[in-house]
Amino acid sequence: MLTEHILQRLASIVGPEHVATGTVDRITHSFDATQQQFLPDVVVHPGTTEEISRIVQLANEERVPIVPRGAGSGFTGGSLPIHGGIVLVLTRMNRILEIDPDNLIAIVEPGVVTGHLQKEVERLGLFYPPDPASKDFSTLGGNIAECAGGPRCVKYGVTRDYVLGLTVVTPTGSVIHTGGRTMKNVVGYDLTRLLVGSEGTLGIVTQIILRLLPKPEARKTMLVAFASIDGAAQAVSAIIRGKIIPTTLEFMDGAAIDCVRRAARIDLPLECRAVLIIEVDGDRALLAGQAQKILDIVRPLGVLETRTAETAEESEAIWRVRRSVSPSLRALNPHKFNEDIVVPRSRVPEMIRLLEAISARYGVPIVNFGHAGDGNIHVNVMVDLDQPDMKDTVRRVLDEIFRTAVGLGGSVSGEHGIGTAKAPYIAMELEQPTLAAMQAVKRALDPNNIMNPGKIFPPDIAEHTGCAASPPPSLDPYHA
Amino acid sequence: MLTEHILQRLASIVGPEHVATGTVDRITHSFDATQQQFLPDVVVHPGTTEEISRIVQLANEERVPIVPRGAGSGFTGGSLPIHGGIVLVLTRMNRILEIDPDNLIAIVEPGVVTGHLQKEVERLGLFYPPDPASKDFSTLGGNIAECAGGPRCVKYGVTRDYVLGLTVVTPTGSVIHTGGRTMKNVVGYDLTRLLVGSEGTLGIVTQIILRLLPKPEARKTMLVAFASIDGAAQAVSAIIRGKIIPTTLEFMDGAAIDCVRRAARIDLPLECRAVLIIEVDGDRALLAGQAQKILDIVRPLGVLETRTAETAEESEAIWRVRRSVSPSLRALNPHKFNEDIVVPRSRVPEMIRLLEAISARYGVPIVNFGHAGDGNIHVNVMVDLDQPDMKDTVRRVLDEIFRTAVGLGGSVSGEHGIGTAKAPYIAMELEQPTLAAMQAVKRALDPNNIMNPGKIFPPDIAEHTGCAASPPPSLDPYHA
Repeated sequence: MLTEHILQRLASIVGPEHVATGTVDRITHSFDATQQQFLPDVVVHPGTTEEISRIVQLANEERVPIVPRGAGSGFTGGSLPIHGGIVLVLTRMNRILEIDPDNLIAIVEPGVVTGHLQKEVERLGLFYPPDPASKDFSTLGGNIAECAGGPRCVKYGVTRDYVLGLTVVTPTGSVIHTGGRTMKNVVGYDLTRLLVGSEGTLGIVTQIILRLLPKPEARKTMLVAFASIDGAAQAVSAIIRGKIIPTTLEFMDGAAIDCVRRAARIDLPLECRAVLIIEVDGDRALLAGQAQKILDIVRPLGVLETRTAETAEESEAIWRVRRSVSPSLRALNPHKFNEDIVVPRSRVPEMIRLLEAISARYGVPIVNFGHAGDGNIHVNVMVDLDQPDMKDTVRRVLDEIFRTAVGLGGSVSGEHGIGTAKAPYIAMELEQPTLAAMQAVKRALDPNNIMNPGKIFPPDIAEHTGCAASPPPSLDPYHA
Repeated sequence: MLTEHILQRLASIVGPEHVATGTVDRITHSFDATQQQFLPDVVVHPGTTEEISRIVQLANEERVPIVPRGAGSGFTGGSLPIHGGIVLVLTRMNRILEIDPDNLIAIVEPGVVTGHLQKEVERLGLFYPPDPASKDFSTLGGNIAECAGGPRCVKYGVTRDYVLGLTVVTPTGSVIHTGGRTMKNVVGYDLTRLLVGSEGTLGIVTQIILRLLPKPEARKTMLVAFASIDGAAQAVSAIIRGKIIPTTLEFMDGAAIDCVRRAARIDLPLECRAVLIIEVDGDRALLAGQAQKILDIVRPLGVLETRTAETAEESEAIWRVRRSVSPSLRALNPHKFNEDIVVPRSRVPEMIRLLEAISARYGVPIVNFGHAGDGNIHVNVMVDLDQPDMKDTVRRVLDEIFRTAVGLGGSVSGEHGIGTAKAPYIAMELEQPTLAAMQAVKRALDPNNIMNPGKIFPPDIAEHTGCAASPPPSLDPYHA
């Protein structure tokens, strides 16, 4: 517990109405999408950079852990207060400060919901491409902390590619400004991109300069049903080799198709074992030809059926197929482990075959879908944790999955981050000297390890200094 | 001077034939494009990551400065051995290890010349967009150290946007691997982009994973002559507002036009005071329409003449106008200070007017050209340093130029970096806490300050620990 003195100082900084220590408030801010739970000591809702700077100075003096939080929709525990302390909720800071069509930038506060910014810039004919599945509720601050991706990344890149500059409160409470309003800027170290994806462990982002694009004139959506996952994977490679980079290249494997068939009565050919949803965007005059070229490329690869949306409604119907996967999974088993491995796109078929082998070997259903265009596979291990030894089985299954992805030249996380959930696996991918370099950066910027402690780094090396708060509750790396 | 013992150990690591201490070799590696000169103690040409790791371990133990170097074509002193020590030349490591059309990546060593990679990937229908003016001789390692830009960045981004992963020897001699072969990767801190643009001060890049694109099918080049710089600048904004992002949007101001007219007998309308060179690329079917749309947008803005290249030769003739600027400048005065400020693109006309005022106030010619599309202006201050007090005048002129750029929301360097030349000005742009955060990162990764010491940070804060080598010779921040 924090002392009354610290709570009073917090209240004097943000006003007592923005400091909550009641059980309900603490419980409300104790979990994220991992379904783990850790009670913070206090929940603070700051309104300005200056307030955050003073709060962090206080936390740093008093060695109190401080955990920044947006919508709390992360999948890897980034916003969990695993050592208690202060949860700093940034949702009051939700203003779009500027949209500048001449310089194609937007300046926003971290609490702005991503989808809200997208709608606002689209009204001006502009475009903010990153589109994590959570975009209708997750915040730009959270997207930056995790370097969020999404389906459109195959063509447009990830969050990192759209962040030009940041205002940041460092773990010692200083306010720094990184980058700026221009695409080109080579003045000192690129702290902007060091902060992007740092999961709130290196500072608190309080203002963001984002790069925008002109909104593409039109888009065209296609669904292609394949007899095999190999056909679909070959299609992905063939499209790229055909010098076309679609906006999205989403896939669903046979297990995913079975699920949606059962749950949502989606109408797909019976023999269909893989689906690609392909979208192209750009000048209207070009899209029909580009769509046709794609269909010509994929047709020899065991295609059972193709659908091309001619209207917004038809496009929506195609996307409904993809979106129905996630909700349909619970019918398989009550507990889902959703991992977001990534492999070089040419290795996707190999990865899928190896996932099928793991599924067979352990007798647990594994359903795969995701972003084939950039090799980012959402692997859903569906289990019933009430079955005997299932926790241990899951542990071994995930271990094999991550090892396999890394073995194929891939990575344990494409867009969800490490947080607490994947910290036990990070050393599979990063060698000790690489981790040591990251730890050195962390220590340099956060000497007292107050800023979102216990995240990213494996538990045995994560705690380089003690914090005054309570010791961590026992930590289950599986979000069940 | 280094001890005989250190020289022998260097020879035992790389072979005596790759260690040079002769005067000619040392002089050959004592300068870059800043025309400053600092003699290294020894020039070493390593061949492998392993050799570099052992050399850096030795340098770190013995506290010897180590300065990585590619082609030595930098404009800000990044490869100058200002404290003596070891110059580590990476040009032997010049292999393209892999070009992978399925995953759109290339794996290269740092000594590969950028233009060479571009030709090789283009033979496979692929494309590496960053195109610094030095691309026919500068190396990818150097491009990464400085985060090189170029004309195509307005559409395609800068070097940072194409680096997916690195092998790096850290300043303590460890070998680390950052990033990977995939677009998406959120496993720990983004050391890849921290390294890009770090000017060889945080480690030595020994292998690079680059992202490639499909080569655009065709391109179309236009030259538009304007009666005023305002017209040209308005044209840039109007094109962007028209939702078109051309591949390049290069401009030349009136002073640049005067120079090329005198030197190269370039045929432009007499009243022409600004030129835009606009290139679009993409699908052939689209380009004619896009070019026409651009010409329709710009025509009301005081356009005197437009030329659209229909053949490669005509395109080349247009680019010759732009390329003839630099060589023509020496006719004005013998000494050139080429600064690469950047401002938000909408502020370019204001910046040009303020540059004209500075030129008039100090009575020194200032010629401006560059990348209007991303606000990156190459400001060429042409002087005769043999004139009395001219060094001091230049100092004040540059000071005003940088202050003006920063005042307009811009930056003192868009693509050349800071090095030694701009270190005295960095504090104009970065506040003390921001610089302190960068310094903390430097100290964390390079505790003995052996890796390219004396770069980026202002002289009074740069030297956090002593090096065993000789003290720095007096340093003139102006590259005359």
